[in-house]
Amino acid sequence: MADPRFFRAAGPFTVGEVARATGCEIGGAARTDLVLDDVAPLETAGPSHLSFLANPRYGEAFAASSAGAVCVLSAAVAEAPSGATLLISSDPYRAFARAARLFYPATPVEPGIASSAVIAETARIGDAVAIGHHAVIEAGAEIGAGTSIGIGSVVGAGVVIGADCRIAAHVTLSHCLIGDRVTLYPGVRIGQDGFGFAPGRGGHEKVPQLGRVIVEDDVEIGANATIDRGALPDTTIGAGSMIDNLVQIGHNVVIGRGCVLVAQTGISGSTRLGDFVMVGGQGGLAGHLTIGDGARIGAKSGVMRDIPPGTTVGGIPAVPVVQWHRQTAMLERLVKKKDKQP
Amino acid sequence: MADPRFFRAAGPFTVGEVARATGCEIGGAARTDLVLDDVAPLETAGPSHLSFLANPRYGEAFAASSAGAVCVLSAAVAEAPSGATLLISSDPYRAFARAARLFYPATPVEPGIASSAVIAETARIGDAVAIGHHAVIEAGAEIGAGTSIGIGSVVGAGVVIGADCRIAAHVTLSHCLIGDRVTLYPGVRIGQDGFGFAPGRGGHEKVPQLGRVIVEDDVEIGANATIDRGALPDTTIGAGSMIDNLVQIGHNVVIGRGCVLVAQTGISGSTRLGDFVMVGGQGGLAGHLTIGDGARIGAKSGVMRDIPPGTTVGGIPAVPVVQWHRQTAMLERLVKKKDKQP
Amino acid sequence: MADPRFFRAAGPFTVGEVARATGCEIGGAARTDLVLDDVAPLETAGPSHLSFLANPRYGEAFAASSAGAVCVLSAAVAEAPSGATLLISSDPYRAFARAARLFYPATPVEPGIASSAVIAETARIGDAVAIGHHAVIEAGAEIGAGTSIGIGSVVGAGVVIGADCRIAAHVTLSHCLIGDRVTLYPGVRIGQDGFGFAPGRGGHEKVPQLGRVIVEDDVEIGANATIDRGALPDTTIGAGSMIDNLVQIGHNVVIGRGCVLVAQTGISGSTRLGDFVMVGGQGGLAGHLTIGDGARIGAKSGVMRDIPPGTTVGGIPAVPVVQWHRQTAMLERLVKKKDKQP
Repeated sequence: MADPRFFRAAGPFTVGEVARATGCEIGGAARTDLVLDDVAPLETAGPSHLSFLANPRYGEAFAASSAGAVCVLSAAVAEAPSGATLLISSDPYRAFARAARLFYPATPVEPGIASSAVIAETARIGDAVAIGHHAVIEAGAEIGAGTSIGIGSVVGAGVVIGADCRIAAHVTLSHCLIGDRVTLYPGVRIGQDGFGFAPGRGGHEKVPQLGRVIVEDDVEIGANATIDRGALPDTTIGAGSMIDNLVQIGHNVVIGRGCVLVAQTGISGSTRLGDFVMVGGQGGLAGHLTIGDGARIGAKSGVMRDIPPGTTVGGIPAVPVVQWHRQTAMLERLVKKKDKQP
Repeated sequence: MADPRFFRAAGPFTVGEVARATGCEIGGAARTDLVLDDVAPLETAGPSHLSFLANPRYGEAFAASSAGAVCVLSAAVAEAPSGATLLISSDPYRAFARAARLFYPATPVEPGIASSAVIAETARIGDAVAIGHHAVIEAGAEIGAGTSIGIGSVVGAGVVIGADCRIAAHVTLSHCLIGDRVTLYPGVRIGQDGFGFAPGRGGHEKVPQLGRVIVEDDVEIGANATIDRGALPDTTIGAGSMIDNLVQIGHNVVIGRGCVLVAQTGISGSTRLGDFVMVGGQGGLAGHLTIGDGARIGAKSGVMRDIPPGTTVGGIPAVPVVQWHRQTAMLERLVKKKDKQP
Repeated sequence: MADPRFFRAAGPFTVGEVARATGCEIGGAARTDLVLDDVAPLETAGPSHLSFLANPRYGEAFAASSAGAVCVLSAAVAEAPSGATLLISSDPYRAFARAARLFYPATPVEPGIASSAVIAETARIGDAVAIGHHAVIEAGAEIGAGTSIGIGSVVGAGVVIGADCRIAAHVTLSHCLIGDRVTLYPGVRIGQDGFGFAPGRGGHEKVPQLGRVIVEDDVEIGANATIDRGALPDTTIGAGSMIDNLVQIGHNVVIGRGCVLVAQTGISGSTRLGDFVMVGGQGGLAGHLTIGDGARIGAKSGVMRDIPPGTTVGGIPAVPVVQWHRQTAMLERLVKKKDKQP
C-alpha cells in the first residue's frame, strides 16, 4: 500500500470495474468479482493486488507472482501464474497507468492564495487558482483557471500560464508562454537569456536575447531542467513532450510534439527536433541540426549531423545504431585477436 | 518584433545611426537614410529590419532575405540580395549584438528593497541597489552599488558582491567574493562545500572545505550551475568567462580569463584552465589537470591528461582532434571492409 | 588562514595535541611541542602550519614545502623536507580531515524559527531545530532534534527528517523519509514524480508514482541533484553514500551503503547498486541493471549491462577497464600504422 502519509487511496474496486476503466479484456482465472484494494509490483503483490507485466525482463517475477490480477499482453497469458486474473491489453503499461489512477486519483488543487504570496496588481489570476507561500507573480502575468503555483515560485512579468497547470515549488519563469495542463517540477528555469555572445579576446559581447519560450499543452518538464529563451525566434517545446530532470535546452531550439528527452540530455542552440523524437539519458545534440520525426537517439550519444526521420542512432559521433554496434564489436574483436598473437 | 510583454523597443534608427553605433561600413544598396525599426532573423526580416549573417550555413537564407539591412563580413557582399543595405564588419555578429542593444537597451535596475526581503543589520548595501521579495542578505554581506538581487536569493554571511551585478532569482551564495558586472542566472549555487572526504569502508570522512569561490569581473554563470568552494586554496573563475547552464565546477578549480564552458560541462577538482579555453557541451575534465591557454575541448570529450596551449582535442579519452577524427574514420572503414568480405 | 569572514578558527594546537586527536604517530623532526595555528596546502604552508600529502602527484611540493608539520604515509618519510615534523598515518588524508576539523570545528546550529517561516500546525518540530527565513514546513511533516532547515526550503506534507541533519537553502522535499545526520546542499530536489509514463502516439500517459524516497543516515547529496520517488517500490539511498552536485537518480533506484557518485552522474530507473560502488563524473547507468558491491565505474562511462562485484569498468558501452584501455590503444595504433603506409 502506498504510504498513507503521502498518498490517499480510493477503492477497493472489482476486477470488472478495473477492466471497464482501463478497456481490458478479462482472462486467466477470470474472477470478475475479485475485489482489488491496491496496486503493487509483481514481486510483492498479494491476492487483492493489481500488478502489471510490461517488460519481458520481468517474466520470471510474473510466473512466480501472487498478484490477484495482472495487466498483460495477450502473448503473456500462457506464462501466467495459475490463480491470477488477467487484464489483457495491447498496452498493459497504459492499462496499469489508468488502473493506478483509479486507485490513487490525482489530488485536486485547493484553490487559494497564500498570505505571503506577492501578486502584482496588474497580474490576472483565473478561477480556482492555488498560489503557494512566498510565490511572486509579477506585473502583467496571467495564470489560467485551475492552475497551481508552488511555494516560492516566480512568475515573471508578462508570463502567460494556461489552465490546469501544475507548477511546483522553486520554479523560475520569465519571457515565456505556457500552455494548458503543463507540469513543471521543482527548480525548473524557463526563459532566461540564451548563451549568445560574440566571442573575442577583448571580451565576449553579449547578444540581446529577444525571443521567448513557448511551452505547448500537456508538456512535462523535470526537476532543475533549464530552457533558455530564443535569441530572435522562439524556443519551442511541442505539445505532449516529456522532458526529464536536469535537461538543458538552448536558445532557438524547436522540439516537436510528443518527444521524450531523458535526464541530463542537452540540446544545443537552433537545433530542431521533429515529432516523437526520443533521446536517451545524457544524450547530446550539437547546434543547428535537424532531427527527423520519430528518430531515436541512444543514451550518451553525441549527435553531430542531421538525422533522417525514423532512424535510430548511437555513439559519439552518433551513427546508425547497427553501425555503432558493429564498431563496438569490431574493436572488441581486434583486441582479442591481438591477445592471441604470440 | 520582440514580444512587447517582455521587451521594450527603442528606435527607430537610420542605417547611418546604426553604422555609427556599431562601427560598420555601409555597402550594398547603401541606403544610409533607410529607417530601421527592428531586428529580425534573415528568414523573417522585412524591409525595415536589421538582420545578420555570421554562420556560412545560413548563406542561402541571406541570398533570399528581404531584410532592409544586414550585418555581414566583406566576403559576403557578393552574395547579398539586391536591395539590401549592408553593414560591413570584420565581426558581424558583434556588430549585430551592438545594434540589437541599440534597439533593445538593457532594462535599468529599479533601486529599492522589497518589503519582504530580510537584511541583516550588519550587511552593507550600496547605492541604487535592488533587492527582490523574499531575498535574504545575511550578516556582514556587502552588495555593491547598482547591483540587483533577485527574488528569493540568499546572500550568505560575509559574501561580497561588487557593483552593477545582476543576480537572478533563487540563487544561493556562500563563502564567495563576486566581482563587478557579474551575471548569475536562476538557481546558481556558489560556495557550498566541495566534494572532499577521506573515503573508507568504515565511513567516508568529510574534510572541512576552508577555501572560497572567487568570481572575477564580467563573468556570467548559467541557470542551475554549481561551483563548489575550495578545500584550502580558492576556486576561481577568471574575468570575462562565460559559463553556461548546469555546469559543475569542483573545488580548487581555477578558470582563466575569457573561458567559455558550454552547458553541462564538468570540471573536476584542482584542475586549472588557462585563459580563453573553450569547452563544448557536456565536456568533462578529470581532476588535477593543467589546460593551456586557448585550448579547445570538443563537446562530450573526456579529458584525462594535461592539454598544451592552443590545442584542440576531442573524444574519450580526449586526443588531438585530427587524431580523433582519424580514429572515428578508421573504425568506420574497418566495419565497411568486413561487410565486403564474403 | 581561512578567510575570517567565512570561517572561525579554533587553535592553536601543539603537534602532540593534533597527534592525539588524529591517532597519528609523530616522526621526522618530531617537534611534539611545535605550536600549529592553521592548516594550509603544501605549497603555501609555513612553519606554524599543518599540511598533508595524500596524492603522490604532489611529492615534489612535499619535498619543497616549508610546512611545520605534514600528515603522511610512513612510505613518504624518506622524502620529507628536513625540519618538518611528520604525523604518520595509514590514511593521512583522513588524519588531515580530523586535524582540520580540530582547527575549524563545524559551526553549531543556532536553534530558532525565523519569523517568516511557515509551519503547519500538524508539523512536529524536534528540540533545538533551526528553521530559516521563508522556509515552509507542510502538514504532518516531522523534523528531528538538532536539524537545521535552510532559507526558503520546502518540507512537504508528511516528510520525515531525522536528527542533526543539515538541509541547506532552496531545497525541495516531498514523499521522502530522511535519516539522521544527512546533509542536503542547495537546490536538491527529492521526491518528485519519477519519469514514468506509457508512451504512445496518441499521447504519453503518466503512470502514478506511488513510492517514496528513503535517504538513510549519514548521506550527503550535492547541490541541484535530483532524486525521483519510486513508481511502486521506493527509491533508496544507502547509509553513508556521498552524492555530488547535479546527479540524477531515477525512480526505484537502490543505492547501497557508502557509494560515491561523482558530479553529473545519472542512474536510470530500477537500477540497483551494491555497497561501496563508485561512479566517476558524468557516468551513466542504464535502467534495470545490477551493479555488484565495490564495483568502480569510470568517469563518463556508459554502463549497459550488469557489473559483477569488485569490477572496474570504463568506456561506452562500459567494459572491464583493462579491455577499455586496450581498445583505446588499439585504435591509436591502427591510425598510426595507416599514417606510415605510403
